[in-house]
Amino acid sequence: MTREPMTAPQAERVSALLKALADPVRLQLLSLVASHEGGEACVCDLAEAFDLSQPTISHHLKVLHGSGLLERSKRGVWVYYKVADEVLNSLGKLISSAGA
Amino acid sequence: MTREPMTAPQAERVSALLKALADPVRLQLLSLVASHEGGEACVCDLAEAFDLSQPTISHHLKVLHGSGLLERSKRGVWVYYKVADEVLNSLGKLISSAGA
Repeated sequence: MTREPMTAPQAERVSALLKALADPVRLQLLSLVASHEGGEACVCDLAEAFDLSQPTISHHLKVLHGSGLLERSKRGVWVYYKVADEVLNSLGKLISSAGA
Repeated sequence: MTREPMTAPQAERVSALLKALADPVRLQLLSLVASHEGGEACVCDLAEAFDLSQPTISHHLKVLHGSGLLERSKRGVWVYYKVADEVLNSLGKLISSAGA
């Protein structure tokens, strides 16, 4: 979204990222992961903040990971998620750049 | 999406903005308006860039305006659209701030 108009393939890619992000629970999950100690969290840390089942939280985390907005690593029995800083930063800059 | 977790009402508001933006045609429309001479454009300037009817383009412009992402003003028979810089900038910063 620079002064050079976005091409159709670019718009498709950005749209897919925004769709993954455009859900109230996923936005809250992402911000909870970012604000968690050490910048990462497992589903065990996150489920208690919502009035939702752990499988529902896991589904939303899977969408965020599938789109590239969350990274994950397995340690012991838990999967830990952290925000994909570069992806979020690039997306944020792209959106801001449409403004003056 | 700062280090303070987002509240449910904040997430609802941001989600509504992102949903309006999360469409390939609307992303291209917004970037076309931003890159148009003087930073504004009417549907007459925009329709030719797409293989879509003018009513379809008008519908997408209406969604972008309804969400606050585009401003509009009427001059003569045409409605001119311009990007709502502050809204886009705030949204972009909010998304970037989730990254490091």
